[in-house]
Amino acid sequence: MTKWVYTFGDGKAEGSAEMRNLLGGKGANLAEMSRIGVPVPPGFTISTEVCTYYYSNGNTYPEGLDATVKAALAGVETALGMGFGDAENPLLVSVRSGSRASMPGMMDTVLNLGLNDATVIGLAKRSNDERFAYDSYRRFIQMYSDVVLGVESYLFEDVLDDAKRDANVEHDTQLTAAHWRAVVDRYKKIVAEELGKPFPQDVNDQLWGAIGAVFGSWMNQRAITYRRLHSIPESWGTAVTVQSMVFGNMGDDCATGVAFSRDPSTGDNAFYGEYLVNAQGEDVVAGIRTPQHLTLKGKEKHGSHLPAMEEVMPKLFDDLCAIRKILEAHYKDMQDMEFTIQSGKLWMLQTRNGKRSINASVKIAVDMVAEGVLTKEEAILRIEPQQLDQLLHPTLDPKAPRKILAKGLPASPGAASGRVVFTAEEAEDWAKRGEKVILTRAETSPEDIGGMHVSEGVLTTRGGMTSHAAVVARGMGTPCVAGAGEIRIDAKAKTLKVRDVIVNEGDVLTLDGSTGEVILGEVPTIQPEMTGDFATLMGWVDEIRTMKVRTNAETPLDAETARNFGAEGIGLCRTEHMFFDPARIISMREMILARNEVGRRAALAKLLPYQRQDFVDLFTIMKGLPVTVRLLDPPLHEFLPNTEAEQEEVAKASGIDVATVRATVHQLHESNPMLGHRGCRLGVTYPEIYEMQARAILEAAVEVSKTTGEAVVPEIMIPLVMGKAELDMMKAVIDTVAKDVFAKAGATLDYKVGTMIELPRAALRAGAIAETAEFFSFGTNDLTQTTMGMSRDDAGAFLEVYRQKGVVDSDPFATLDQEGVGELIKLAAERGRATRPDIKLGICGEHGGDPASVGFCQTVGLDYVSCSPYRVPIARLAAAQAAAKAKA
Amino acid sequence: MTKWVYTFGDGKAEGSAEMRNLLGGKGANLAEMSRIGVPVPPGFTISTEVCTYYYSNGNTYPEGLDATVKAALAGVETALGMGFGDAENPLLVSVRSGSRASMPGMMDTVLNLGLNDATVIGLAKRSNDERFAYDSYRRFIQMYSDVVLGVESYLFEDVLDDAKRDANVEHDTQLTAAHWRAVVDRYKKIVAEELGKPFPQDVNDQLWGAIGAVFGSWMNQRAITYRRLHSIPESWGTAVTVQSMVFGNMGDDCATGVAFSRDPSTGDNAFYGEYLVNAQGEDVVAGIRTPQHLTLKGKEKHGSHLPAMEEVMPKLFDDLCAIRKILEAHYKDMQDMEFTIQSGKLWMLQTRNGKRSINASVKIAVDMVAEGVLTKEEAILRIEPQQLDQLLHPTLDPKAPRKILAKGLPASPGAASGRVVFTAEEAEDWAKRGEKVILTRAETSPEDIGGMHVSEGVLTTRGGMTSHAAVVARGMGTPCVAGAGEIRIDAKAKTLKVRDVIVNEGDVLTLDGSTGEVILGEVPTIQPEMTGDFATLMGWVDEIRTMKVRTNAETPLDAETARNFGAEGIGLCRTEHMFFDPARIISMREMILARNEVGRRAALAKLLPYQRQDFVDLFTIMKGLPVTVRLLDPPLHEFLPNTEAEQEEVAKASGIDVATVRATVHQLHESNPMLGHRGCRLGVTYPEIYEMQARAILEAAVEVSKTTGEAVVPEIMIPLVMGKAELDMMKAVIDTVAKDVFAKAGATLDYKVGTMIELPRAALRAGAIAETAEFFSFGTNDLTQTTMGMSRDDAGAFLEVYRQKGVVDSDPFATLDQEGVGELIKLAAERGRATRPDIKLGICGEHGGDPASVGFCQTVGLDYVSCSPYRVPIARLAAAQAAAKAKA
Repeated sequence: MTKWVYTFGDGKAEGSAEMRNLLGGKGANLAEMSRIGVPVPPGFTISTEVCTYYYSNGNTYPEGLDATVKAALAGVETALGMGFGDAENPLLVSVRSGSRASMPGMMDTVLNLGLNDATVIGLAKRSNDERFAYDSYRRFIQMYSDVVLGVESYLFEDVLDDAKRDANVEHDTQLTAAHWRAVVDRYKKIVAEELGKPFPQDVNDQLWGAIGAVFGSWMNQRAITYRRLHSIPESWGTAVTVQSMVFGNMGDDCATGVAFSRDPSTGDNAFYGEYLVNAQGEDVVAGIRTPQHLTLKGKEKHGSHLPAMEEVMPKLFDDLCAIRKILEAHYKDMQDMEFTIQSGKLWMLQTRNGKRSINASVKIAVDMVAEGVLTKEEAILRIEPQQLDQLLHPTLDPKAPRKILAKGLPASPGAASGRVVFTAEEAEDWAKRGEKVILTRAETSPEDIGGMHVSEGVLTTRGGMTSHAAVVARGMGTPCVAGAGEIRIDAKAKTLKVRDVIVNEGDVLTLDGSTGEVILGEVPTIQPEMTGDFATLMGWVDEIRTMKVRTNAETPLDAETARNFGAEGIGLCRTEHMFFDPARIISMREMILARNEVGRRAALAKLLPYQRQDFVDLFTIMKGLPVTVRLLDPPLHEFLPNTEAEQEEVAKASGIDVATVRATVHQLHESNPMLGHRGCRLGVTYPEIYEMQARAILEAAVEVSKTTGEAVVPEIMIPLVMGKAELDMMKAVIDTVAKDVFAKAGATLDYKVGTMIELPRAALRAGAIAETAEFFSFGTNDLTQTTMGMSRDDAGAFLEVYRQKGVVDSDPFATLDQEGVGELIKLAAERGRATRPDIKLGICGEHGGDPASVGFCQTVGLDYVSCSPYRVPIARLAAAQAAAKAKA
Repeated sequence: MTKWVYTFGDGKAEGSAEMRNLLGGKGANLAEMSRIGVPVPPGFTISTEVCTYYYSNGNTYPEGLDATVKAALAGVETALGMGFGDAENPLLVSVRSGSRASMPGMMDTVLNLGLNDATVIGLAKRSNDERFAYDSYRRFIQMYSDVVLGVESYLFEDVLDDAKRDANVEHDTQLTAAHWRAVVDRYKKIVAEELGKPFPQDVNDQLWGAIGAVFGSWMNQRAITYRRLHSIPESWGTAVTVQSMVFGNMGDDCATGVAFSRDPSTGDNAFYGEYLVNAQGEDVVAGIRTPQHLTLKGKEKHGSHLPAMEEVMPKLFDDLCAIRKILEAHYKDMQDMEFTIQSGKLWMLQTRNGKRSINASVKIAVDMVAEGVLTKEEAILRIEPQQLDQLLHPTLDPKAPRKILAKGLPASPGAASGRVVFTAEEAEDWAKRGEKVILTRAETSPEDIGGMHVSEGVLTTRGGMTSHAAVVARGMGTPCVAGAGEIRIDAKAKTLKVRDVIVNEGDVLTLDGSTGEVILGEVPTIQPEMTGDFATLMGWVDEIRTMKVRTNAETPLDAETARNFGAEGIGLCRTEHMFFDPARIISMREMILARNEVGRRAALAKLLPYQRQDFVDLFTIMKGLPVTVRLLDPPLHEFLPNTEAEQEEVAKASGIDVATVRATVHQLHESNPMLGHRGCRLGVTYPEIYEMQARAILEAAVEVSKTTGEAVVPEIMIPLVMGKAELDMMKAVIDTVAKDVFAKAGATLDYKVGTMIELPRAALRAGAIAETAEFFSFGTNDLTQTTMGMSRDDAGAFLEVYRQKGVVDSDPFATLDQEGVGELIKLAAERGRATRPDIKLGICGEHGGDPASVGFCQTVGLDYVSCSPYRVPIARLAAAQAAAKAKA
């Protein structure tokens, strides 16, 4: 029989950290902590398999689940000597979601469950604090009604506001037990009025209601959006953890807090965190009360006047430090922990690997190798390759003048400029129009995720370093300044105000997420340097990886940039980009408009010197590194203008009558240009084009070899072959040109001729093609289009629907479709190698810079990946990670 | 060491009929005849491997070939007691091409080789006929100079004309030995003047020159064109046969002729042929002298006044009849033979399976089964499936009035009407403009092949049943009337004249190739009947084949036609064709222009009754046979108009403002519609469309089942899936509709849900897809487009170049690309069957009616092919042939 429920607590556990897929991150780590002796309140986790069952069986539970849950609950009762629903000594529980991947705040949670009109009295007696008991009860009713019963939260907020007004007080803490009792009565009335039946008093009904709500929240809109943004499959499901409650709000010997074992922003090996005395956990992260620092250092660093835990509760602080050490040593990673102190006893409620900025990520990884905690392989596996992107882009020029408007917390590092908007919806609308925006909110909530995603930066006026905005922005790599309290937002007027400065919607602000500065207008930026910890890490990356990383580049600037980022050659130089230059497009068009080969050759002769100089420049920059040049690929109509006015201009410039221009445009029009007269089909039809290009490449190679004295080995690549015949034909053209070039130059050099594999047929025929081809480069953009029958230009109309409905997990043009396109690549690699064991294999589609796709390339055994210059470091890291995984 | 040369003659041979690939058809059959005791002049064949060597080694021969040829020639000298170049008793030889497939007249031949100034005297002495010797010598010089030395033929023709004028005679035969000697002198002078060196006197130089010319002619333009038209690979190469000459022109006890063992036009088991006394073989086929019949019957039938061979040379006629029997019995097929009688001795120069009309083909096959010569399997393999097409199309209505203009020979059966043109070039030009043409020539030559190919019919004023025009037209299945001697062509004026009737270029003529009638204007036609021998043959076809044959049809007319042609179901019913009907397109457009699902559903509700009636009609016609219905496939923009005027009309008709119509057209525009928002991508985006279609199908099926009392089993097919997920989603929609339909009707029925496999990814994922799909139908049109990355609409610009340059053997949209697309089909069939052993597999692309592709489907193990109605019998035959081959 399937095991549906896993218990933990009291130094034991049925689960462990490895069972993350089954128990969710939270459940697995609670089990693990319990297992290694860290004090956790006892409880149990209902596995993700129950979630899967729930959704595939019309929202029902497997048989026998209720009995198992009952037994697990009995275990908790025994461990604590309390009874669930026991009026004398009531056990209260929390019911929380927990999926394999962290989805902070996306799903529902219920706390203080088990309270009713009877047990609240027991709780009051046992805690000797009636005020606390009724406060807990009203919190429970409000939360349960919102999450499980669907009663709108503002109804309860209104009652609370009324109560405070009637009592003539400002803060909740000023309300007495009697006040809370009255509030509870009002709350129960609201529920009865809204639902036509009373608030459930049966604790088991409460429990199953909460379990159902948590499973149900897996499919709420927030969670669906978050999964889409983070490529988390729906099929993973969530677990539900039911855990005995401990209270940080039973008096001044109680507290609650969150802690990072190292600084998540800088990566410094300093204990870092915030706490509140006499509070429940939600109070810390919600940003309602300003939290206090754990350490004196932290307090000093942030200039806080509130006492640190180190001062207030030195003994418990020592306990917490000890647990910090135990957990970091155990998990070998920086931990993000939640704790509660109830009546002077420390309980750990959660631990997980902490989110961190990329700077912190690199520093922690490098430090941990120095500390002997991690191997280099483990260290590089800790870095999310996509995050490196932040290190490769400009930061604010420290010398540039800054009109500082306000200062907040440096919640997520990096520099961002953009126009101010005040709602997530506006952010999405403006971004769609191509505007860069800074989302500005009092505080953010899970509903804002979409807007945060499209924003350059996030600014909040409330909340701390662990507030929703801060955590989510760090995860996204979006710069964030949080809790900039001087700023007053007027949402209605769409303005913000600092003292007498008014900023309107649409005005430009700059955020410095590393200092917390909010700056008026745009600030100039400077290029990043690859030094320090980052350089150390990249050094390990290059030691570990086995695949080479090249770049896709055709301009000298791109080639230089890529070399600086560590590119080991050019994997794709698209020669057609060179023809769009205004000086050349005239000759290109003359070639296209020519009536015959003689005319075409005359025009090509004019293009030759330009094209040759292009390659002289590239070979010079890439000296000593391989350069793969793809011959002309796009259909010729791409070089002709479409409007009548432009056509007349071309006619004038080329001396050809406009009717001919128009007729040629018409004649070259294609229904499906993607599948049309392009690639080597142009070379087969007009060999003189490829002949000119081969001549330009080889003459340039000879020239640069002579000038520099170093060998240039050009790799000439034929696009869009369907089989061996086209390649043979084009190779013959190149070989003939080569003989002539070498004879005239009185010099010779090695060159390779290879092909793109970008059609399914080419992949299938790879064995035969490899008889001629000295290398394959997988053109995964086109291979994806043809294998899936999906045009990148047209997929927008349905791909989003396909992602929403789960037909595809992610955009196949961003992350390689391993099941389909991937199988063709694997098969082509095998067949190519069977024919020519030393054939060089690479990839030059967009996927060459996508970490998941790079990992696939390693498993298939490619020799290199090639990507755009700014993605080269990302590809290097991804390649190293893939190599490390392959070795493990 | 490779054996390059194979000798034959004297009742022995090193080769045989099986060695056709190595020796060419001619060489193999000469060897075979020699082997079985039929008298053939001795000689030897240089294999096709030498041709391959020749072209892959810069037009050079393998080492040792010259010695081997010398030895083989010595063998011939010994057998005949003559010497090559021997002035006393000279051996003369012919040098001929011979490829694996017959390519009549496409390559070069040299006769009478071995003559020079010395041997001509010996030949004169030995033959005791100086006139013959010098006539042979001048023929040799002319032919050799044309073929080998590249001297233009007309220069020699002029000399001959001058000689006749000087001698004051009309015919060549009237020239004396002295005349011919003078002609030979002039000929030699021409050669010396043209080339600057004398005509080669060394017989070995002559021989090697001729061998080189024959190999070289494999790559002449005629041969290349012929191969392209007949899909003959360049790689096959030609053999060269060197054979001792025998002469039919050494006097009146000499003759030459061609014979068919049965009538090639009707298939009657009657000896059939033509001969000329005192002539060389070229004279018969060139149509210069009117040939005489072999048999008395033939003479009578064609009303000839010239004596038959049966009368003139009864003994030799008997010898020929005996050989006819031997050869037909040996080859088990109708033979096309060439013979020469030299001084009263019969020599066979060639035998091969004779070309024939489709009627003859069917009759001979059926007769030979009755005669016990062939099995039914062998008989059906004798019919070229493509040729059946002629039997399925209309013939001239015998009751219609005919204005008979002239009568010629019934050279190739069938009826054809078209506009008269007088050159092959005109024929091609007119045909390109979409005109149907009748190519009218005095006689045709190999240069006319292209023009004959595009013509509806061919008419010649000279030549017999074995003339070039007749043979080629029969092979092509093109109706032909040959030798219509009353017709006078004025090529310059572009008219033809019969007595006082003048027909201009562009006037319409009708040919009856079965009677030889040439008729003015167009004659009405009648539908063919599938009776007699044809019905017998098709009966065997259905016994033998294992694959079912379905049809692609959506109209009642197509469905009826296909059933009459033997279709066993509908393999592809394209539902979108039903939406283009004017009554429906309005609702279709309303659906597309709707703002939301409610609007779409309202429009779909209007379409439902129409669509349901479509299926009621189809299911009624196809009662008891399976019907596969493909749900909506094309992108929605195909249903919207493109011009502004039409858009305004639609706006008016639908009550939607024109701006919305225009905006929708703009929004739905796609860069590559082939790879766009179509197929099941529409169903996933707008499930209500497929829901309506499923409802129409299932309601119709229930209704027809009730009405007829017979089970209707609709097969609902989802197009363009990439994997299992889309199919699952669409099947859920269909299953839900089915439950509702069955509940409302109080009846239930079986239905299947399956999918097109038309994307490479679908083929790769076939294993998973088959978990849901109950059948696969290979949509090879789209699968070819995506696998090869080639749009059918755009391929015209390069596909012809690809064919000419040999990149593709044939149009991949006509004949399945087995190496690429075929591998995906094979793989998908295997994976699909591995998951679901009883999955039904079929093909519904154009390839389903192409015999070669049907053969491939058999080897992959498909259950059925589906094709257009008129191709159903062709597919049945092809399927039977494939089954017969699989069994053998």
